[in-house]
Amino acid sequence: MRVPPGVSPADFAEAIKQLEGAISKEWVFTSDEDVDPYRDAYSPVWNEEEEPIPSAAVAPDGVEQVQAIIRVANKYQIPLWTISTGKNLGYGGSAPLLGGSVVLDLKRMNRVLEIDEKNHYALLEPGVSYFDLYRYIQDRKLKVWIDPPDPGWGSPVGNSLERGGGYTPMHDHFDAVCGMEVVLPNGEVMRTGMGALPGSKTWQQYKYGFGPYVTPIFSQSNFGVVTKMGIWLFPEPEAYLSGTVQVWKRDDLMPLVEIFTELVSSGTMRGCTTLAGPWFGPPNPELDPLRASGSVTAMEDYGRRKDIPFWSLPLPFYGPAKVIAAQWEYTKGKFSSIPGVTFQDGPSYRFPLSAEEVPKIRDTVPLGIPSLQIFSLLPPQSHGHIGFSPIIPMSGQALLEALELFDGVHSELGSGRAVLTILSSFPRAFVIIDLFPVERDVEKNRKTREIYRRLIKVAAARGWGEYRTHTTFMGDISNTYSFNNHALRHFHETIKDAVDPNGILSPGKCGIWPKRMRKAEA
Amino acid sequence: MRVPPGVSPADFAEAIKQLEGAISKEWVFTSDEDVDPYRDAYSPVWNEEEEPIPSAAVAPDGVEQVQAIIRVANKYQIPLWTISTGKNLGYGGSAPLLGGSVVLDLKRMNRVLEIDEKNHYALLEPGVSYFDLYRYIQDRKLKVWIDPPDPGWGSPVGNSLERGGGYTPMHDHFDAVCGMEVVLPNGEVMRTGMGALPGSKTWQQYKYGFGPYVTPIFSQSNFGVVTKMGIWLFPEPEAYLSGTVQVWKRDDLMPLVEIFTELVSSGTMRGCTTLAGPWFGPPNPELDPLRASGSVTAMEDYGRRKDIPFWSLPLPFYGPAKVIAAQWEYTKGKFSSIPGVTFQDGPSYRFPLSAEEVPKIRDTVPLGIPSLQIFSLLPPQSHGHIGFSPIIPMSGQALLEALELFDGVHSELGSGRAVLTILSSFPRAFVIIDLFPVERDVEKNRKTREIYRRLIKVAAARGWGEYRTHTTFMGDISNTYSFNNHALRHFHETIKDAVDPNGILSPGKCGIWPKRMRKAEA
Repeated sequence: MRVPPGVSPADFAEAIKQLEGAISKEWVFTSDEDVDPYRDAYSPVWNEEEEPIPSAAVAPDGVEQVQAIIRVANKYQIPLWTISTGKNLGYGGSAPLLGGSVVLDLKRMNRVLEIDEKNHYALLEPGVSYFDLYRYIQDRKLKVWIDPPDPGWGSPVGNSLERGGGYTPMHDHFDAVCGMEVVLPNGEVMRTGMGALPGSKTWQQYKYGFGPYVTPIFSQSNFGVVTKMGIWLFPEPEAYLSGTVQVWKRDDLMPLVEIFTELVSSGTMRGCTTLAGPWFGPPNPELDPLRASGSVTAMEDYGRRKDIPFWSLPLPFYGPAKVIAAQWEYTKGKFSSIPGVTFQDGPSYRFPLSAEEVPKIRDTVPLGIPSLQIFSLLPPQSHGHIGFSPIIPMSGQALLEALELFDGVHSELGSGRAVLTILSSFPRAFVIIDLFPVERDVEKNRKTREIYRRLIKVAAARGWGEYRTHTTFMGDISNTYSFNNHALRHFHETIKDAVDPNGILSPGKCGIWPKRMRKAEA
Repeated sequence: MRVPPGVSPADFAEAIKQLEGAISKEWVFTSDEDVDPYRDAYSPVWNEEEEPIPSAAVAPDGVEQVQAIIRVANKYQIPLWTISTGKNLGYGGSAPLLGGSVVLDLKRMNRVLEIDEKNHYALLEPGVSYFDLYRYIQDRKLKVWIDPPDPGWGSPVGNSLERGGGYTPMHDHFDAVCGMEVVLPNGEVMRTGMGALPGSKTWQQYKYGFGPYVTPIFSQSNFGVVTKMGIWLFPEPEAYLSGTVQVWKRDDLMPLVEIFTELVSSGTMRGCTTLAGPWFGPPNPELDPLRASGSVTAMEDYGRRKDIPFWSLPLPFYGPAKVIAAQWEYTKGKFSSIPGVTFQDGPSYRFPLSAEEVPKIRDTVPLGIPSLQIFSLLPPQSHGHIGFSPIIPMSGQALLEALELFDGVHSELGSGRAVLTILSSFPRAFVIIDLFPVERDVEKNRKTREIYRRLIKVAAARGWGEYRTHTTFMGDISNTYSFNNHALRHFHETIKDAVDPNGILSPGKCGIWPKRMRKAEA
């Protein structure tokens, strides 16, 4: 049996016995067979010595059992790695950062505790998936939307805590969080925001509460185990309309982004979109020769002949039908200042969709309907993927620089063209997702890690940092947030040591190690 | 000379000498004459023994001087009370919570460090006022709006940290904060969010950074001194349109609020508004007799005859002229389901306003132009005011209950009718501001405090808590956020003790005392 680092086999056996006593034998997993599914199927260190394999997993059925587990973990200094549904694929899946950790799997805590249709919120346990929540709402015919990410099998609690994003106007998931219940590393239950007021009527309606607003420090964090979370929902809109702006010259990107930024900052356009630039896309036998030539004029000429815009920007609008029609008209007017710009209208929908309409829609995610169809876009031969995800300023110049820089790293280090996706997942910045295939091949994965680490470095040198990453690279990325001799990390560590003196919760998460495991800095 | 509690006169004299050495004699204030302006002119304990009068004040000119002051404060365990412009009137002004504290006055740090017109943000020092920022933008003819509160002489940094609100679509001020520089109680300078990445290009464009998102714990807090803050600005809209919905029966409030809530949650209406209900307003010779009768039917009949709607809800719309016209049309359609509803159109404006237009506008604050005109609405004979500010659920039933409950407390305790304002200052909840006049009269102020404390209690019993308060009541309100034996306050205290072991920053702020001053709980 594997044991957590620094824990003796005898102590660990005793701890397991106590965990079984606390939450029943059935929900404490220790055999290789039971623990194997907690490995990260998309791990870039698969089967290598450094692959962090858990020693065991425990699945409590409620808050009291979480508290009981935490008490045992404190007693024996056992590192726990908390997951909600374990679908954080691309960023570590259900596997811990530190090998030998015990996975604290909250999948059984999957109750929708409350949905308020008039005030548009939900109170959820961490094991509720986007599919669960969607079905719950559909079964009751409630007029509220959820905001699923791609894909929808993960959990709203987990995805929000990781600060993921979706596509509707509620696409910044952490921004929609309102009120938490947290089991602290000392085993105490705390409610944040208005939840700290007993019998509160506005726990899910006002975020801040009174005094320091602490809810956000439990995102991307190892300071507590979130056992309940409020999230804001979107009232079912009357209609949806998507329009696409197409520009035909490379440098049209500058005014394109400038106008887009104003539409976003003003709230005239409130969904998340993907900016497509086929000349910066994945390998393509038709485009590759011209791309290799490096001649922008040649690309532009070819694009005009073959009806391939240099940049395409689909814009989603949600709301009353006449309002969104006016928004799209205004939007077209603004972009008309770019010579040669063209527009495509549609698709558009009225809600609720009929049962016949839904299956005909190619991508339902921007309409609040979770799906797994994103997987059909992945190369079939790969075992999975990880994403390099830097935040890029909302300027055409920065985007061009980033695309060229990242593509250059891939070419130089021999992985061919990058697969770069530009998303407006957050209110005032782009995120580029550079998707890497992950293989069951040690040599290929070694190369992937080399490229990934080079990308972190070249991005940081330009002043760009990542919003999220796979557990394998959390330390590397944390190291780039180093202003004033890592003052922010020291602050994180100060909080960590104060709230979790035994260092039991998710050691290493986002570069935060408990004192007893902290390496002396070079 | 006053001294801070627990500091000997000799130590304090030595500390003052060191402060003078660090930041020059000119900016260290110790005489009664110099310290007197730091008293709270609106104090509800004016001239009573418990009035917290500072011992001194220091006004640094930059980050290094803040660090130097903090080093001296640590050495002699001197409590500092940080203010930006000191205009937090109604909530404590420039006076500390703990008498004898040294006011750390950041008014000299008043530089607008950056305004980005294309990405719509500002990077500010704490001493910049809304007027300063407005003038800076006007002088350069930048196409961005600020969101001033009522009144506009305070500072965006200070107001955002206190989680104040304004009227434009950026009305939730803390929500518009993006990136901080903080001097920690140990004297270290930290940058949060993307600012932790040296040379970051997105410090003011992406809030969260990497790892636990700590920026929000510096709001309503005593964990650090914020020396720089990014805030998001609103791109100058094409137009503004206000329309008012009027309903004529008391119970029309239920559908009125329900429809309003959907407009807000969906983003169809994005400004802050004030719901007016004259029957719940301040004393009024015309209405008082009927109010006293308690007959709702009689009030409704009178209102119809005299053209006084039972409830009036002005709704501001900001954006492209055709979009906001469509929004208002849609809005009218939704409210038309309420029998007898009436609407009033206007005013509306196109931007930029001409120099001739501005002086003609009664209330410029919702148009992003700071003013002091709110003072003209206060009773001329009072010396000032304080506000009781509970968060109330967005439901008509809750509002009715709250208005009756609070008015009842005032009547019962003999202060006559309450002056209650209902604001939609936050995205999904109302805040009621119950404005109390403050006098230079010990007996009247004692009565005010009695009523205030009763209101806290009756509100908490209904599950309603306050979002902010005067220093005098911070402990009372903190006590109501008591879930699980004050778990949240204990968490605040754990952080406080870890980051500020000498307890030098703003002791008592929002109920958080440093360990050495913490009273044993009853």
